[in-house]
Amino acid sequence: MKLCMIGSRGHNNYVWAGLARLPQVQVAGITSGTSEDDVAPLKVWCEQNGHTPATFDDYCEMLDQVNPDIVSICGPFEQRAEMCSAAFQRGIHVFCEKTVAITMESLTVLKEAYAKARTHYPHLHFAAMMGLRYDPAFYTAWRAVQDGAMGTVRIINTRKSYKLGTRADYYRQRATYGGTISWVGSHAIDWIYWFSAATFQSVYATQSTLYNRDNGELEISALCHFTLTDEIFASASIDMLRPETAPTHGDDRVRVIGTKGTIEVQRGRVFLINSAQHGEIELTPASDRQIFCDFVNHIEGKTETLLSAADTFAVTEACLLAQQSADIGQPLHFGTL
Amino acid sequence: MKLCMIGSRGHNNYVWAGLARLPQVQVAGITSGTSEDDVAPLKVWCEQNGHTPATFDDYCEMLDQVNPDIVSICGPFEQRAEMCSAAFQRGIHVFCEKTVAITMESLTVLKEAYAKARTHYPHLHFAAMMGLRYDPAFYTAWRAVQDGAMGTVRIINTRKSYKLGTRADYYRQRATYGGTISWVGSHAIDWIYWFSAATFQSVYATQSTLYNRDNGELEISALCHFTLTDEIFASASIDMLRPETAPTHGDDRVRVIGTKGTIEVQRGRVFLINSAQHGEIELTPASDRQIFCDFVNHIEGKTETLLSAADTFAVTEACLLAQQSADIGQPLHFGTL
Repeated sequence: MKLCMIGSRGHNNYVWAGLARLPQVQVAGITSGTSEDDVAPLKVWCEQNGHTPATFDDYCEMLDQVNPDIVSICGPFEQRAEMCSAAFQRGIHVFCEKTVAITMESLTVLKEAYAKARTHYPHLHFAAMMGLRYDPAFYTAWRAVQDGAMGTVRIINTRKSYKLGTRADYYRQRATYGGTISWVGSHAIDWIYWFSAATFQSVYATQSTLYNRDNGELEISALCHFTLTDEIFASASIDMLRPETAPTHGDDRVRVIGTKGTIEVQRGRVFLINSAQHGEIELTPASDRQIFCDFVNHIEGKTETLLSAADTFAVTEACLLAQQSADIGQPLHFGTL
Repeated sequence: MKLCMIGSRGHNNYVWAGLARLPQVQVAGITSGTSEDDVAPLKVWCEQNGHTPATFDDYCEMLDQVNPDIVSICGPFEQRAEMCSAAFQRGIHVFCEKTVAITMESLTVLKEAYAKARTHYPHLHFAAMMGLRYDPAFYTAWRAVQDGAMGTVRIINTRKSYKLGTRADYYRQRATYGGTISWVGSHAIDWIYWFSAATFQSVYATQSTLYNRDNGELEISALCHFTLTDEIFASASIDMLRPETAPTHGDDRVRVIGTKGTIEVQRGRVFLINSAQHGEIELTPASDRQIFCDFVNHIEGKTETLLSAADTFAVTEACLLAQQSADIGQPLHFGTL
């Protein structure tokens, strides 16, 4: 299989970790995706790992000339949606950095492009780089919830806290960044969707740029409040205030409470209480489900992916609607836009 | 000093623990506060602990005949506000189970009664039984936040999770219970107010009676989203779904993240990260500030209480406005009602 790679603004490490276990996939084309960025990181990795791709300035030219099976997209945030659409039109499977669109308008266009492409290419696969679904702790907790250990889910509390660090200029404008609820919060919002296995009904959110250390329009704190079907409530606490001295870049947490028990992921560990057990539970190795391997295995019909196109669209919509709610200061209902 | 006690629907144990250290305070009158309840629990404790109060059927008669310095109120939830008012009119200091009012209308009347009484009795003291302010872990975390260890507060996440157990009938009607956001959530909402040292601006909340195990109108899950001055955001996750097999009745948590650090209380322990330290911190003993001792010491001018009348009113209003928001499904602003 031939793979093309666009850009370095994202988790190319997911692709690279997968390629080490996918000898049938070769990187055949690379591009930085924008004249602002250098293609060097892609080129260097390929040279060091036995891939000999052609280098392109223009991603459409690359897709046409290489005609790859798969494209992975880490281009500029504001161009990701049109890059996806360009691939869909050519019948190319897309593995894209999240969020796949940074405006509701571009998401709508993208969904239409995917639906149209599927009429020609019914097996066309599309997934965002929601890597934390494949994290052993989150995967273990999710499995426990799916297996019914919590009964019916009633509340989900999530947390995403990042170190701010030093950010490239494109993080400082909404137009090129998309916003913190989407960029940082998308994982938390994905957990809500994924763990609940329910449908989003409404969202109320707030966000603030105060104390953002001269990072322009970048929101440094946010809070989202979702209601899902069956009166499931979910919070997503989002910030980029994590102290630089903290032991990890991020503090990722989820807590699910249901009618029969409660489960929490914190610091890579999983704690469960229900009538059968109480305490830390052993992690279910998810290593057989590395995110990019899973993507390729799904295409090859070997497994059912954890991350469908429908998931990708639903979570992206939830991120963008939350951000709209925060922008206007009002709760918003899904499916009315 | 003479103390009267009304009812057993609340934390009389706070009073009793304090009395052991307050030889100058004698229980002089007791009443069940309602013909539905038995005065026996009050009577038995007094007999066993060297107090010889008179027993009354009517609390107003008790206040008039005994003329106590202090009354502690754990009467029926829906009568607490008028019981407080009756004491205020007589210049009696009031230590009352939270929330001190279960409707916005009765809170308004209560605030007026207190303000009016203060014109005659300028030192009249009033505090709700917000016992968790005196918990060593919460007190330690609060002190650290007040000392500036977190810088400027940006987000507060709180959790109150209780076991449902078997509930008396009065929990099953809003009219006699008040609602879960108030009854369970008031502690969480108090932490938000107390830790932030800010003013509530708006709230959006949701609540559900689904899966409440035949407990009528009792909401078993709820989620509140507050905005305070300076764009501080705060969540309160509230439920009565804690598994009966859990090691403690409640799971009480707070997390504060500010511009300089983050602190968390969980399972009675406190964890802090800032530039100076990282890890669990030692608890500051709050035992010298037992809640009822603190109340009495404040009246006697020996200390400044942790829990003022202004705090009590502000937090009660926040609980009731959150509940109104959940009732109507819209965010509400403070100070407009």
